[in-house]
Amino acid sequence: MSNMLIVGSVALDNVRTPFGEVTEALGGSCAYASVSASYFTRPAIVAVIGGDFPDKYRRLLNKHEIDLSGLQVVPKGKTFRWRGYYEYDMNQAHTLETRLNVFADFHPVIPESLRKTPYVLLGNIDPDLQYEVLDQLEAPRLALVDTMNYWIEGKQEQLLRVIRRCQIVLLNDAEARQLCDTPNLQKAARQILKLGPQRVIIKKGEHGCLMFSRDSYFTAPAYPLEVIKDPTGAGDTFAGGFLGYIAGANRLTETTFRKAVIVGTAMASFTVEEFSLGRLANLKPTDIVRRCRELKEQTHFPRVELAIAAKK
Amino acid sequence: MSNMLIVGSVALDNVRTPFGEVTEALGGSCAYASVSASYFTRPAIVAVIGGDFPDKYRRLLNKHEIDLSGLQVVPKGKTFRWRGYYEYDMNQAHTLETRLNVFADFHPVIPESLRKTPYVLLGNIDPDLQYEVLDQLEAPRLALVDTMNYWIEGKQEQLLRVIRRCQIVLLNDAEARQLCDTPNLQKAARQILKLGPQRVIIKKGEHGCLMFSRDSYFTAPAYPLEVIKDPTGAGDTFAGGFLGYIAGANRLTETTFRKAVIVGTAMASFTVEEFSLGRLANLKPTDIVRRCRELKEQTHFPRVELAIAAKK
Repeated sequence: MSNMLIVGSVALDNVRTPFGEVTEALGGSCAYASVSASYFTRPAIVAVIGGDFPDKYRRLLNKHEIDLSGLQVVPKGKTFRWRGYYEYDMNQAHTLETRLNVFADFHPVIPESLRKTPYVLLGNIDPDLQYEVLDQLEAPRLALVDTMNYWIEGKQEQLLRVIRRCQIVLLNDAEARQLCDTPNLQKAARQILKLGPQRVIIKKGEHGCLMFSRDSYFTAPAYPLEVIKDPTGAGDTFAGGFLGYIAGANRLTETTFRKAVIVGTAMASFTVEEFSLGRLANLKPTDIVRRCRELKEQTHFPRVELAIAAKK
Repeated sequence: MSNMLIVGSVALDNVRTPFGEVTEALGGSCAYASVSASYFTRPAIVAVIGGDFPDKYRRLLNKHEIDLSGLQVVPKGKTFRWRGYYEYDMNQAHTLETRLNVFADFHPVIPESLRKTPYVLLGNIDPDLQYEVLDQLEAPRLALVDTMNYWIEGKQEQLLRVIRRCQIVLLNDAEARQLCDTPNLQKAARQILKLGPQRVIIKKGEHGCLMFSRDSYFTAPAYPLEVIKDPTGAGDTFAGGFLGYIAGANRLTETTFRKAVIVGTAMASFTVEEFSLGRLANLKPTDIVRRCRELKEQTHFPRVELAIAAKK
């Protein structure tokens, strides 16, 4: 029985980076987020694929015990495809081609058995579709909405009404600045919290992320890597690991949220080490725990005592 | 008796930001770094001023018990002046005018009594002058070199020979990328460590900083502020607080270095809250300790346990 639902895209990606390239590789927010979450809970996905979706990728999702009862298949349609590349600095994805294919007419339908799912991840898709999902759910305990600049620019009103119904908002620093029209991320987060959500998480790529609630503030670094082969899916992997960890723990304490941020950070670091889900889909629990411990060691410092601070 | 020496500039700044402006305000790397360090040890400065240097600023430095025996005064000369402004996003200083004045012919002379000082901060000045300082010192325990893009572009060879003689290198992320010709900060730091220094600290402004040694890695966030009135001097304040704390503790353990990074971070956050040294020069030790504790709370998270990570 799933206690986590992920709505988003399943895609076939062609990606080129300075470290190589892949063609027709498994991608899309649902793929990254669900496999990431699968290490902590049993997620279900709601997405759409075409009849051309390779069997090996279905097997990969099955192997991770992902509930595919909400995965729509359009037998005569083609799966969503994205083609892009990254320059040497890896911070910006350059899109060469987007073919929506079956995704163009996609409307998420939540199976009856999943309507009471307590933990819901609304992947970065059209806010109108995200709203449709919320309408089909029975008061989720925690709904997390992910988004991007494209929707902030084109569908801001629709996005805001989704944000007002969610408990957690996830976005990156540029998006937070854009949505709130301020360069200051602290101010931006406070503004978003006023809309209703209990928490805002601002992702900053190589600089880690910030988590805000009305009465708490947490900052986490990225896991340090000397080689990043392909950044595709890092944000979705973070989201899946974050919410998956919370769903697995089934507790909404500050402590759980902080650990979830660290788990999401660790999971994202595995994704970027290989193309597609090359590393993410092949982890042992000890790999994850080891990386979380390294993050703890890398951020730890003892109390600074008054005696020394006042010393002359 | 001073155990810390700071070489750099003392300036009179005209600064405008979206939050106001100041004219003929105390500035320069030596001013910020020495006052910052003065909360932890008794620093001496080596710099130059003109006969026009306002008495009130000399009193300010005296009040913080800064050893001015190495401060050269050119009675008929004018003090170094900088005029600049910041745009709304505050990340980039725009220089309108730099008048070197007495600084144009400055050569640091270390007074006899200061040549054995164990902790030395080479503020961001011409690498040739930094080298002259090292030549006058008797084997400092810890020499820290700060620099900027201007010297990386114009005097790279001279800068490298200074770096080879220092134990700690401090630079910002853009400078690290430029000096090492790589977008990856982890790689850049490893490259600098190979030149000889024991530690590299990469400052990332609002994203905090990274500290590397051959066998350790520490990452610290910036202190969160909703309003930054004037970023001038933040880097120098960090450097002064960092090395001042170490000089005060007089210990070179990983733990001391980490606490020093946090102290430097806290000190820099005070500087940017006001123009010039408006806040930095008026702190109580408890202000500093409180901010360090907040930084600890903001980065703390419990161990992520295997039991939960493996849960299905």
